[in-house]
Amino acid sequence: MTDNNTVTTLERIANLLRIHSIEATQASNSGHPTSCSSMAEITSVLFFNVMHYDPKDPRNPAADRFVLSKGHCAPILYAAWAEAGAFPVADLKNLRKIDSDLEGHPTPRLNFIDVATGSLGQGLGFACGMAYAGKYFDHSAYRVYCVLGDGECSEGSVWESFAFGSFYKLNNLCAIIDVNRLGQSDPTPLQHDTETYRKRVDAFGWHPIVVDGQSVNQLLAAFKEASELTDKPTCIIAKTFKGSGLKGIEDELDWHGKPLGDKAAENIAHLRALVDEATLVRPQIPKVTAKVPELKKDKQIKLSSPPNYDGKKEIATRLAHGTALEKLGKGCEYVIALDGDTKNSTFSIKFRDAFPNRFVECYIAEQNMVQVAIGIATRQRYISFVHTFAAFLIRAADQIRMGAISFTRVKYVGSHAGVSIGEDGPSQMALEDFAFFRTVPNIVCFYPSDAVSAERAVELAANYDGAVYIRTSRPNFQILYKNDEVFEIGKAKNNKNPKHEHHLPRYRCSHLNKTYKEVQRNSLVDNSHVLLPDQNIRDLTDVYRRDKHFLEQQSNTTSQNQTVIDTKQAENFESKYCVKENYYSIPCTCDTSFVGRIIQNFFDRMKFGVEFFLFMGDVIQHRNQFVEYNYPFVPHSTCSNEMATLNEIRNQLNTRPTPVKHTTTSTYYDIH
Amino acid sequence: MTDNNTVTTLERIANLLRIHSIEATQASNSGHPTSCSSMAEITSVLFFNVMHYDPKDPRNPAADRFVLSKGHCAPILYAAWAEAGAFPVADLKNLRKIDSDLEGHPTPRLNFIDVATGSLGQGLGFACGMAYAGKYFDHSAYRVYCVLGDGECSEGSVWESFAFGSFYKLNNLCAIIDVNRLGQSDPTPLQHDTETYRKRVDAFGWHPIVVDGQSVNQLLAAFKEASELTDKPTCIIAKTFKGSGLKGIEDELDWHGKPLGDKAAENIAHLRALVDEATLVRPQIPKVTAKVPELKKDKQIKLSSPPNYDGKKEIATRLAHGTALEKLGKGCEYVIALDGDTKNSTFSIKFRDAFPNRFVECYIAEQNMVQVAIGIATRQRYISFVHTFAAFLIRAADQIRMGAISFTRVKYVGSHAGVSIGEDGPSQMALEDFAFFRTVPNIVCFYPSDAVSAERAVELAANYDGAVYIRTSRPNFQILYKNDEVFEIGKAKNNKNPKHEHHLPRYRCSHLNKTYKEVQRNSLVDNSHVLLPDQNIRDLTDVYRRDKHFLEQQSNTTSQNQTVIDTKQAENFESKYCVKENYYSIPCTCDTSFVGRIIQNFFDRMKFGVEFFLFMGDVIQHRNQFVEYNYPFVPHSTCSNEMATLNEIRNQLNTRPTPVKHTTTSTYYDIH
Repeated sequence: MTDNNTVTTLERIANLLRIHSIEATQASNSGHPTSCSSMAEITSVLFFNVMHYDPKDPRNPAADRFVLSKGHCAPILYAAWAEAGAFPVADLKNLRKIDSDLEGHPTPRLNFIDVATGSLGQGLGFACGMAYAGKYFDHSAYRVYCVLGDGECSEGSVWESFAFGSFYKLNNLCAIIDVNRLGQSDPTPLQHDTETYRKRVDAFGWHPIVVDGQSVNQLLAAFKEASELTDKPTCIIAKTFKGSGLKGIEDELDWHGKPLGDKAAENIAHLRALVDEATLVRPQIPKVTAKVPELKKDKQIKLSSPPNYDGKKEIATRLAHGTALEKLGKGCEYVIALDGDTKNSTFSIKFRDAFPNRFVECYIAEQNMVQVAIGIATRQRYISFVHTFAAFLIRAADQIRMGAISFTRVKYVGSHAGVSIGEDGPSQMALEDFAFFRTVPNIVCFYPSDAVSAERAVELAANYDGAVYIRTSRPNFQILYKNDEVFEIGKAKNNKNPKHEHHLPRYRCSHLNKTYKEVQRNSLVDNSHVLLPDQNIRDLTDVYRRDKHFLEQQSNTTSQNQTVIDTKQAENFESKYCVKENYYSIPCTCDTSFVGRIIQNFFDRMKFGVEFFLFMGDVIQHRNQFVEYNYPFVPHSTCSNEMATLNEIRNQLNTRPTPVKHTTTSTYYDIH
Repeated sequence: MTDNNTVTTLERIANLLRIHSIEATQASNSGHPTSCSSMAEITSVLFFNVMHYDPKDPRNPAADRFVLSKGHCAPILYAAWAEAGAFPVADLKNLRKIDSDLEGHPTPRLNFIDVATGSLGQGLGFACGMAYAGKYFDHSAYRVYCVLGDGECSEGSVWESFAFGSFYKLNNLCAIIDVNRLGQSDPTPLQHDTETYRKRVDAFGWHPIVVDGQSVNQLLAAFKEASELTDKPTCIIAKTFKGSGLKGIEDELDWHGKPLGDKAAENIAHLRALVDEATLVRPQIPKVTAKVPELKKDKQIKLSSPPNYDGKKEIATRLAHGTALEKLGKGCEYVIALDGDTKNSTFSIKFRDAFPNRFVECYIAEQNMVQVAIGIATRQRYISFVHTFAAFLIRAADQIRMGAISFTRVKYVGSHAGVSIGEDGPSQMALEDFAFFRTVPNIVCFYPSDAVSAERAVELAANYDGAVYIRTSRPNFQILYKNDEVFEIGKAKNNKNPKHEHHLPRYRCSHLNKTYKEVQRNSLVDNSHVLLPDQNIRDLTDVYRRDKHFLEQQSNTTSQNQTVIDTKQAENFESKYCVKENYYSIPCTCDTSFVGRIIQNFFDRMKFGVEFFLFMGDVIQHRNQFVEYNYPFVPHSTCSNEMATLNEIRNQLNTRPTPVKHTTTSTYYDIH
């Protein structure tokens, strides 16, 4: 099938790549030369025979894609690109140096890298996204290749991607598992049991091909076989040896992530003889032959029509998000939406119904969904909007982190945020999400407070050249803004005094440190409305129980709803149950009548010396009167104090290590 | 095999549980009765024939365990426990009420629940932990059952757990997949393709049994078969129908998470006829026959010997952690350690070598590792220490979140924290970890600054009745504390003025807002040491490049290391590249000589009006002289400002949306 000369040349190049991997890691005195060696033939065959690409134009949208999921093998990847002509081979020895972009793990700071890897188990999902875009959006013939380590196949995210790849029949996708048997600290669980890999891959709907991964011949045949499939992706299970070709090192434990040290010279000499570089003629790299459609891009992406609310009907921000996304899709053909089987809750279903060909159902696999979204968004072609409950977005925290290192432009949309999901319980409530998203480099976080600002958040997100988090809520809310209100990233609005804009992220609520009475006097709230520590629905129960328990122990209780209490008692209560600063915010619950009563009781006792701390978004507009300090857009660095306070309160009030014994409502337990 | 009477009774109980599920969700006007109905027979057979347990002592350590991975089916789980006698059946109608612990998703606030579920795909990992403890720690005959939904089988964490269960031959574990075909918004990807489920389960090393999940007979036979296996876990693939037995609802889409509404009465009447409750004799629940060893527990868990450092040799906190964990293991037989193939980096290997039977290698599957740790720690028997790189712990963020709702006592140990991992690149650096861990309810976070405090952190963690995060670092550090130093949770120390303790979490660094000169005058730093924005190793590169680029554009540069610069230029530089507040902290890098030079240049220009912001831990002790503001223990709420600042700086300095084109050191790019 393939002539001997081709095979020999690719074998020699494989050894040349081994040499570069050894030399670079010697120079940096760190790195993973043995993990590189096991994939030397795979790399040689892919980069010098199989893949169609242009080393001088590595981001060519019609070129084949390559993803190195086992990112710690960066040295051999850099070596392949250098040998292909992307940059001078001499630069390889700058690996891991402080002033070089040839970092220990690849990132798109290098123009031949599409996605950052180095946190294991993510590459295949990125590749799935690229292949999905190739097959269904670009309708192009380019192919996607992804090399995985065997160790990382323990990551569940890998199997999410396997399931995705077969479900969507991504025959343009080829994964290669480098089964080199050895992990970092031990052999991998399956070691060289390629038959089990074959069974798993087959069961997950891929076409498995088991090969000797050190055999150029077998690899060439396998890639050919893969390219001929029409209905499913291929997975080449390559049996290899860690440190393959390295004397005294091959297939030995304890060589993970270590340069060869004093074993380097001997091995390099041996490999040099095999390469015989003086006579090596590098093969022509296959030219890019696939075509991709040009995407017409406007400078500014706009909603097809402005928000259109009459101000009478309450609208949930999640619904407004869906409305806006659909409008965005009308004007912009490169907007894509993904959802994890929650589209009828997040309202991404509105986009799906309008543009079924630009919607990707990812099922309940958030990690893979984010990976696919990042893959789709590579090479700056498509803008992905990812949807699920905000609580479950954090399942993909590591993927979102890696996305930031990849400079991704993915927009994350988390619905059902905060306590307003009420009766479903804490597992469904996103409370931690903001603290995490704040730390994502370069991200912009939106927490729109009404339908108008939600629609504009979507529009601003599409135009922001980076990742965005949009946090939406379940309940219907009143409309706070006029349909033509103009919003900007980094600016909050003051509804009571529209001219007083809060410039974020420097804004802090310190001027809200007033007592309840002062606040009342200043008409920030009126008497009919009450405040409560910001917490989830469970806390309300606790407060109620504690409240009742407390009241039961007092003799001067006059009625269920009216409590007369002396200051001393109240102080004791406060010191026992409340955080020192007495920060409180406005409650959000689905059972307002009931909660209203609790809150009233609570604040009847709490109206001395309490400082206020207004929480954001859904909390605020849930009770219409509290719109004064309403943050339509909350950038990443604004809510650190809020989150800390929320957490402190919750720590004290919400969770207790000792669970209660009873489930009836007649028993009240002590708060520890 | 089984008499007709038993089968008929279990069928009638299944319908009774259906009725309860409908009635409870009618009362709460929310919930998932159709998802409950598909698993009615599974529940009936398990709770009234198969499982050995005591409804009056649900946390009996020798009883069989049950985990409802599809937590939204809480109503039928509550119904089973109520019918078994754990609490009054009448209470079932308090489902989801604000003053009831019968929440929308189960939590261990209920004494018959071991782990909170509701975020999908986690139950099987918890069950794996319970089964591992049963087989290898308790050496007991109790069995573990876990019901999964088919939708959640898209979660990769489920397949991590399948791989774990077979690798450790957990024949005491039985999973049941309720293949009811329908997800929330669409059919599941595999619908009723039970053959593919069978192949996947088989490939992952479990014993698969495909049954009609609505057939009591087939379920009874399957559970019997499962109990007879000796070398692998069993997975029963139960073909069922969503809304099974409910007229006009069974197998129909759009019935996810909805009460039956006006279809309830008719269906209840129909089911009541089938149950004929008046003549129903509930079977005897199989008694607990397994035995578990009693664990001798001391009131205080202590290191077997105090820290023992001579103060001359530098020691990494990760190594000190390993040392302490080994010491802890000597004195306390119920300490368990887990690692994700990083044990030679986290130094949990020291514990493994000393106590191989109490160490669980979880391979590269962080989600399952945390789930297993939580499962092992249930019923308050064992204390699990989980280990991996801090950067990869966040892979299990959702599991850690759910662990908090479960009141788990798991101790999370993340190594290689912060920028000190240097040349490996940002993917390996844990920078976001603290922001996330801070939000975990009730957690205590330790960031020990030297070996002595690291050892004591481990001891304090073991004694804290809740989750703990211990953040360790890679480089060797000097010893700061005497071996007999006493540490307490919530108190930081001031090394310069040992009597001045910082009481955390209220401590803020505001008094450090001094100019560089002022700081110098106050001898907080001396001239030979220099400061830099806190950032990862990439930033240093940026600073260097910018620095050099900047210097190249200046004519008054005298030499590479000495820069004379006028104030105006410096101001321009500052306004362009630096965050407004000018917060800086102390660098941490592996290339100190090189960085030292950069920093000196940088601060030669920066020594006007710069305010200082000291970051914590590894940053501080990395340069010995900066020990004055050293935080041995950083509780959860301390570092909000630090993180915000770190992030702001990083956003401006570190990441740019446009990647550079070149990899050589000769090209400098503009900062956007």
